[in-house]
Amino acid sequence: MLQAIITNGQTGNKMKDIVVQKFGGTSVADTDKIKNVAQAIIREKNKGHDIVVVVSAMGHTTDYLVKMAHEISANPSSREMDMLLSTGEGVSIALLAMALQEQGCPAVSMNAMQIGIMTEKVHSKARIIDIKTEKIKSYLEQGKVVVVAGFQGITEDLEITTLGRGGSDTSAVALAGALNAIRCDIYTDVEGVYTTDPRIVPNASRLEQISYGEMLELARVGANVLHPRAVETAKQYEVPVRVRSTFKLDNLGTLILGVEKMELHKPVTGVASDLSQLRIVVCDVKDNPGTAAILFNGLAIANISVDMIIQSYARRELNTNDIAFTIDKGDLKQTLSILEKVKAQLEFSNVFVDDKIAKISIVGAGMIDRPGIAAKMFKTLADNNINIKMIATSEIKISCIVDENDAKKSVESLHEAFHLESDEIAEVRGTLPDV
Amino acid sequence: MLQAIITNGQTGNKMKDIVVQKFGGTSVADTDKIKNVAQAIIREKNKGHDIVVVVSAMGHTTDYLVKMAHEISANPSSREMDMLLSTGEGVSIALLAMALQEQGCPAVSMNAMQIGIMTEKVHSKARIIDIKTEKIKSYLEQGKVVVVAGFQGITEDLEITTLGRGGSDTSAVALAGALNAIRCDIYTDVEGVYTTDPRIVPNASRLEQISYGEMLELARVGANVLHPRAVETAKQYEVPVRVRSTFKLDNLGTLILGVEKMELHKPVTGVASDLSQLRIVVCDVKDNPGTAAILFNGLAIANISVDMIIQSYARRELNTNDIAFTIDKGDLKQTLSILEKVKAQLEFSNVFVDDKIAKISIVGAGMIDRPGIAAKMFKTLADNNINIKMIATSEIKISCIVDENDAKKSVESLHEAFHLESDEIAEVRGTLPDV
Repeated sequence: MLQAIITNGQTGNKMKDIVVQKFGGTSVADTDKIKNVAQAIIREKNKGHDIVVVVSAMGHTTDYLVKMAHEISANPSSREMDMLLSTGEGVSIALLAMALQEQGCPAVSMNAMQIGIMTEKVHSKARIIDIKTEKIKSYLEQGKVVVVAGFQGITEDLEITTLGRGGSDTSAVALAGALNAIRCDIYTDVEGVYTTDPRIVPNASRLEQISYGEMLELARVGANVLHPRAVETAKQYEVPVRVRSTFKLDNLGTLILGVEKMELHKPVTGVASDLSQLRIVVCDVKDNPGTAAILFNGLAIANISVDMIIQSYARRELNTNDIAFTIDKGDLKQTLSILEKVKAQLEFSNVFVDDKIAKISIVGAGMIDRPGIAAKMFKTLADNNINIKMIATSEIKISCIVDENDAKKSVESLHEAFHLESDEIAEVRGTLPDV
Repeated sequence: MLQAIITNGQTGNKMKDIVVQKFGGTSVADTDKIKNVAQAIIREKNKGHDIVVVVSAMGHTTDYLVKMAHEISANPSSREMDMLLSTGEGVSIALLAMALQEQGCPAVSMNAMQIGIMTEKVHSKARIIDIKTEKIKSYLEQGKVVVVAGFQGITEDLEITTLGRGGSDTSAVALAGALNAIRCDIYTDVEGVYTTDPRIVPNASRLEQISYGEMLELARVGANVLHPRAVETAKQYEVPVRVRSTFKLDNLGTLILGVEKMELHKPVTGVASDLSQLRIVVCDVKDNPGTAAILFNGLAIANISVDMIIQSYARRELNTNDIAFTIDKGDLKQTLSILEKVKAQLEFSNVFVDDKIAKISIVGAGMIDRPGIAAKMFKTLADNNINIKMIATSEIKISCIVDENDAKKSVESLHEAFHLESDEIAEVRGTLPDV
């Protein structure tokens, strides 16, 4: 009897490492897919881990709910939208828990209210403040897989909130952080993070590792694998995140982790292109103190994100500057109307809009301590007769604005110049152990 | 300033009477129907009432969810079924709140968790223990219509429960009780409660009033207007319930209330037929003490409801009885297997099953103090050559088992004998004020 108790103590679930798995809407789009997901979960549990699963709403559920809401109102209240949309995950967690039970795996579904995924009181884009872990841990100790509704939260006064874009990824990563999980696996329809878009460069190679910082830069410049918010959350909690394919379970995907935990660093990890921006040049702005502030403050108030900014002397004799900046194409109309309002104050001559641009970025944590990377980028583009319209740099990223028609050639030449193609990568990086 | 405060005090929302309105799944089956329901709500609010609305899941949502669950598991856990099914009302309350807001009516949706509709910890058929009213009242004081998810509840430890059949009706009536509402309006696809099934007797008349007791008896014998559980809850809280049509808002339907509040009593209010039962006769049961107990205890343990029971001397010389009883047709197989098990103890000779029966009932609170009603029923049936196989009576109901083929004639002749046709009723009962 005593021995039994000791044995329990040694092999009890409390001792197991926790892995958080997240499955998106396409992975749970119908009941057959849900059964497959259940198998992927059991496979991971059989490795000896405690499993917490985060799921999104099934397939097109959210689109369907949004459509009904818009049949009723052009502008439905965000509180009621959150009430409406949060039901989607209620369906998928219940069905997935049933599928697990059906395959002999004890499981229990939990929504944000039952767990206590506490958010600020902001509808449609709430931020997580705190996650209670007591109940989840108690279920894990009973040997159950805990199936959690992603995307949703609850406020102190029991209002239902949703986390907005990238919400379920963020739920999963934040849960992994709160539970001190050894890893958060994001199952998706891509096989991982690539050195560049394989549709542009066919021999782009899958990265086995990437740092949070690199991933953030890649995510922001258009590699739509993981929402930047989820990456930021992972960085904050230092949760290793593995992006992998739901449909190729043997493929380990890409592990996103702290740069200090990475193995080898090449100076450049990936190349990305982004066609979603346009460039505005405001000409002959009077060079008075505070003119730039007037302009960009106006844009900030209207919630327009400005990416790159360059100010240059236009006509020295008139003491004026040209101010060039990039914005999302969708913000053009509003930006022009703001420019109209501040025209009298800024005294500019005219405004040029260039909407045929591409932003080409090279990203790499390794470039910090290796000089000459920027020079190599500029030379590569020059050698290919590609004109650079703007340049911006951060510690681990260099971005150039080029003509839209040069986007493909830019990515191809840079990918080649920095030796990112498949074979080389495989050689340099070797194989990672499954953490 | 002082005057403004006094005026507020006089006309403030606190002073208003509360009406609870309940709309079933067919009333909110699509977004157009939801918009119509919003109009019906605003119409009632404009009469000067505070409105709490209870809605079911949209149209076939529940069927769709159940179908998916069964694609995954033949026998899904009731906890996960409750998690799954409770999402249906989440959708309809959010959409209805949006529709009200869109029509300029302040509204807020609330689920069982947000309100605190506390139930016992039993999945799929929980009973309501307590309903918190603070938050609802606070929203009503702000002039809002509160749209409540029917059918669902929550336990003390935040487990989601559902109330089972008739759940949304029960939610509505219980809320009306807890809020001390002046009335609970159940909007449905029928126009009210009739003296008998209008498909059998075309000149059946709509009852303007009926007592809780009569409604309970009618509900149990097959008038599918309101679930007995909801009627019982209404009786317990003394909530007047009006059953009315969603599609004919000018029709006041039928008011169900305490017998002491009713106006005129005819001895018989309605006639009902029920074809869902069958009769079992267990022959030559040894007349030992406790034999009936052995039989009916066995059925009770298997959760089989026995309706009518008659024990009669079979063969006096052998000291045996015949025991006849009626059960739902669906319970036959299980009943026979229980009979098999107790055969040795009861020493009966054989079992007859008669599945071609109809139960014909006359119901009326007025029959309590008027003798001769039963005699008139039996004579009416005899005059029509209808043989009576079993009889059972309660204070306000007399039921006879007849041959299935005599069902229609029984109802017609009794309806005529007790003068329940349209004109007579209208004359006797007059018109009720809209309470």
